[in-house]
Amino acid sequence: MDDLRTDRPLGAISGPGRLAGPGEGISLEEVALAARNHGMPLEALRYEVTPAGLHYILVHYDIPDTGVDWRLTVGGRVRTPLVLDLAALKAYPPRTHRVTMECAGNGRALLSPRPISQPWLVEAVGTAEWTGVPLRVLLDEAGPAPDAVEAVFTGADHGVEHGVEQDYRRSLPLPVAAGDDPEVLVAYAMNGEPLPPQHGHPVRLVVPGWYGMAQVKWLRDISLTATPFTGYQQSVAYRYKQSSDDPGEPVTRIEPRALMIPPGFPDFMSRARAVRPGRVGLEGRAWSGHAPVVRVEVSADDGGTWHDAALDPAEGHPWAWRHWHTAWTATPGSHVLTVRATDADGRTQPLGQPWNRGGFGNNLVQRVVVLCAQE
Amino acid sequence: MDDLRTDRPLGAISGPGRLAGPGEGISLEEVALAARNHGMPLEALRYEVTPAGLHYILVHYDIPDTGVDWRLTVGGRVRTPLVLDLAALKAYPPRTHRVTMECAGNGRALLSPRPISQPWLVEAVGTAEWTGVPLRVLLDEAGPAPDAVEAVFTGADHGVEHGVEQDYRRSLPLPVAAGDDPEVLVAYAMNGEPLPPQHGHPVRLVVPGWYGMAQVKWLRDISLTATPFTGYQQSVAYRYKQSSDDPGEPVTRIEPRALMIPPGFPDFMSRARAVRPGRVGLEGRAWSGHAPVVRVEVSADDGGTWHDAALDPAEGHPWAWRHWHTAWTATPGSHVLTVRATDADGRTQPLGQPWNRGGFGNNLVQRVVVLCAQE
Repeated sequence: MDDLRTDRPLGAISGPGRLAGPGEGISLEEVALAARNHGMPLEALRYEVTPAGLHYILVHYDIPDTGVDWRLTVGGRVRTPLVLDLAALKAYPPRTHRVTMECAGNGRALLSPRPISQPWLVEAVGTAEWTGVPLRVLLDEAGPAPDAVEAVFTGADHGVEHGVEQDYRRSLPLPVAAGDDPEVLVAYAMNGEPLPPQHGHPVRLVVPGWYGMAQVKWLRDISLTATPFTGYQQSVAYRYKQSSDDPGEPVTRIEPRALMIPPGFPDFMSRARAVRPGRVGLEGRAWSGHAPVVRVEVSADDGGTWHDAALDPAEGHPWAWRHWHTAWTATPGSHVLTVRATDADGRTQPLGQPWNRGGFGNNLVQRVVVLCAQE
Repeated sequence: MDDLRTDRPLGAISGPGRLAGPGEGISLEEVALAARNHGMPLEALRYEVTPAGLHYILVHYDIPDTGVDWRLTVGGRVRTPLVLDLAALKAYPPRTHRVTMECAGNGRALLSPRPISQPWLVEAVGTAEWTGVPLRVLLDEAGPAPDAVEAVFTGADHGVEHGVEQDYRRSLPLPVAAGDDPEVLVAYAMNGEPLPPQHGHPVRLVVPGWYGMAQVKWLRDISLTATPFTGYQQSVAYRYKQSSDDPGEPVTRIEPRALMIPPGFPDFMSRARAVRPGRVGLEGRAWSGHAPVVRVEVSADDGGTWHDAALDPAEGHPWAWRHWHTAWTATPGSHVLTVRATDADGRTQPLGQPWNRGGFGNNLVQRVVVLCAQE
């Protein structure tokens, strides 16, 4: 179960993590990740549910070829191990949740110093309707042993990371895995269609409110354990650390964030925006994995002054983003628009970077550079 | 019709093109493009038709919000201007073509010096089944004037590029636009579904065999002209130039390329591959926009020696890629695998970079670094 290895035969292709030096540009290796994985173009914030192909995607290794003989096993510290094929999963009463997902590394490439990994700016997010079986239903059927403390989830994707060969594997505390708020899903459909290959076909985990690393794709095994899982993705990666020898705190739920649809039209290369003078509608969406978003504020002077945007009513989707809107009167010149969300727990977005060595949970406010030019 | 402007009020956000300096890393602006636009993960070469969301995408400006009142106009030098809504387009007998598309800038980020723009490595490709109306049918109905020489296509996406504000707009010579080999489509479906927003919803152009810049998305107007179109995307961008004052030659059809599914499993960060010693199946796909691919060769020693791969039979899809396969016996150590395609016109892939200032048509052979380690 523990995938940490002390011998590192793959060290020649798999080095340790590092930070970029001062002024160091982004490497071709980071670009190779960015060319595979992608964010959601920010104008797609116009959609309450993100259309196919626009939801962010982060694949650690390769998208596996999950063929016709896929099975999900549920075992470890249980009374009755289960083996389920897709038809068996679909025989349970289905549940659908609208969930906003975000990569824990969103915002990483804006940090200074910059952790070298997938270089996200702000766009690693998306919202989908996920349909599947509540995990608690499967765990009830298998019957956790009295000493079970965690559920460990194994995906079918295989690779090496910082010298450690592994299947992608993460755990949840049993009370989270078996809980009903949020209700964790073993999902087989996204927006009413079978999961696309890159989103975990045929089956993935969906943990509402948690960052993407918990949402194990190509799920093939669930094992209950009597001791906490110490695999690579749990005890080395995905921790808030200040240095490489800091054990750090685990990355779990999504920090609050608001994004706006960049107004006007873009320059191809700089992505800076141009608008005409006058009233400019501003809108976007805001979310938090801790509690509902209760306030969105907008600034048109790079965070100097703020005013409240209007929040649309919550629509019975507690784990999905909320739409907000306001207006701004553009005057000739250059402007920086920003927006920040606050949730019901009082968490909000920082105006200075919340740095950590993995570049996780960087919910620094979005900055949109806008040039207002006369016609 | 000519969107070149001499005043440049948006110059503050839209600078001239440039090349990266020696050792200059990739900028956050290039990463912002890479986070929006994405290639096809190379393991998706396993699919003859690329699943939704995995096909490469390149959007110059924003994905426009093409609402319910979309219309396609056909005008300019025609006898009978047309105004067509989606229902009118679908009333024509539909045609479906399987087409491999590739971005003209594929390979750009590997060039030295590196043109600063969307930083593609090798993955800006995909294959889809496109359904729509042959453009020649619409042109026949509109009736080209005797002096018509080109068809100019306008998309609904709007932005600024190197100081020039524009709707995205490209032309084709009338014999290409009205031809039947390849048959150009005004397409409204991709793989049997309505076009996704990022692929041109509701209607786009599909020009089999040509690079992506010709495949105008969010198509709203077709105008026949009596003189060649000299707009930005035709006369400034998308030309093979050696310097900024070189008028250059137009970028048109896709140069031959073969890609392989990287074997074994990857390192997360370097994307280098690991395999076990012994027989390793190698496979991938190859295409050319000039003529059918007739030969695929593979090298396991970084281009020192080559052997022929097996090509699957052509399946009646002359504008789609062909599957190839072969095997390699891996021995412990580090290896560089490469593959190259040759088409029926004798065009093949260079072993040294075909440099030009825009970074177009770089079909340098793919290099896959593989470490073979003992178990």
